[in-house]
Amino acid sequence: MDLTQRQEHIIEIVKENGPITGENIAERLSLTRATLRPDLAILTMAGYLDARPRVGYFYTGKTGSELLTEKLKKFKVQEFQSIPVVVHENVSVYDAICTMFLEDVGTLFVVNDHAKLVGVLSRKDLLRASIGNQDLREIPVHIIMTRMPNVTICYKEDLLLEAGQMLIDKQIDALPVVKNDEDGYEVIGRLTKTNLTKALVELGRDERI
Amino acid sequence: MDLTQRQEHIIEIVKENGPITGENIAERLSLTRATLRPDLAILTMAGYLDARPRVGYFYTGKTGSELLTEKLKKFKVQEFQSIPVVVHENVSVYDAICTMFLEDVGTLFVVNDHAKLVGVLSRKDLLRASIGNQDLREIPVHIIMTRMPNVTICYKEDLLLEAGQMLIDKQIDALPVVKNDEDGYEVIGRLTKTNLTKALVELGRDERI
Repeated sequence: MDLTQRQEHIIEIVKENGPITGENIAERLSLTRATLRPDLAILTMAGYLDARPRVGYFYTGKTGSELLTEKLKKFKVQEFQSIPVVVHENVSVYDAICTMFLEDVGTLFVVNDHAKLVGVLSRKDLLRASIGNQDLREIPVHIIMTRMPNVTICYKEDLLLEAGQMLIDKQIDALPVVKNDEDGYEVIGRLTKTNLTKALVELGRDERI
Repeated sequence: MDLTQRQEHIIEIVKENGPITGENIAERLSLTRATLRPDLAILTMAGYLDARPRVGYFYTGKTGSELLTEKLKKFKVQEFQSIPVVVHENVSVYDAICTMFLEDVGTLFVVNDHAKLVGVLSRKDLLRASIGNQDLREIPVHIIMTRMPNVTICYKEDLLLEAGQMLIDKQIDALPVVKNDEDGYEVIGRLTKTNLTKALVELGRDERI
């Protein structure tokens, strides 16, 4: 939304002097209160200003783009996560690779006998193992996986954007979405760069806001 | 931006009867033109309605969320693309895997003697080859790559969201950004799900709008 010069001016006045009454703003601009009413209504409705009875207008501190992205900032991981694919820590690297192709995923989560998270297998982990001179049917995945506590996790209530930032910072493709039990983490979801790409595309299609 | 009941009502009236004068809208609502002025100003400024002198108000057909995402829809591939990593079609699968680790990318683009795009290598392509019983140092990548014309490409002027949709539809991690020459495609960039994840996170940080 584009603001007029007068509206920009009003924001400046309120920013410096708020809380300030409509009467006072009008005075500073040498305009009548009536002339100013539509502008103040617009700025309040759009979220730039807030008004309190008997106090006056004050600046919310929000820029136009901040207001635009407020909804995006509230997205939760659980609204975008996928179903996780897990393998037991004792399966062979060969079987893990087959599972990856069969399930059509890029990341596998590794669990122990109690179905608790113990590690993660990326395509690169599997690729690295497969070019070594080893028999892939003989090596269990727990030998080559990235193991706890070096696994980056997230929770379903986490903000989508924070999880996205972790994917970027850690240079990984997926995060396990976990639930915290007494004896470890249960894997209840998978959040991937594909989920975040979909979120962006859906945002553009107006499907999410 | 939340609309009042009266503003929603005005939009309905204009949608059905536009172009319609402010006078006529006021009549239908049994209000004075002056009372309505702030509402009409807000709806016009926010982009829901448009006004033409001597014609009246008409509905722009834009919903609130459409207005919010208009900027996102204009993002171009070139604003987000990364540097491409290419290998020659005659290098071995083993060397390609090493290049992938050294360059820290998830997708390699394959070129011929004229530096034109002939194929793409994903981590899964390389993983599939590496579990076969073959000597990876003896197999050239052109044997295992996804080859033209089955490679999905994009141009730097393409819309980011359309490229993102292609990544999702084709279930791939990266698109080569190409330039069309007489004798083929020159690879000038790489657009990945990481780029799209970053775009979403930056959008949330108000860095892009």
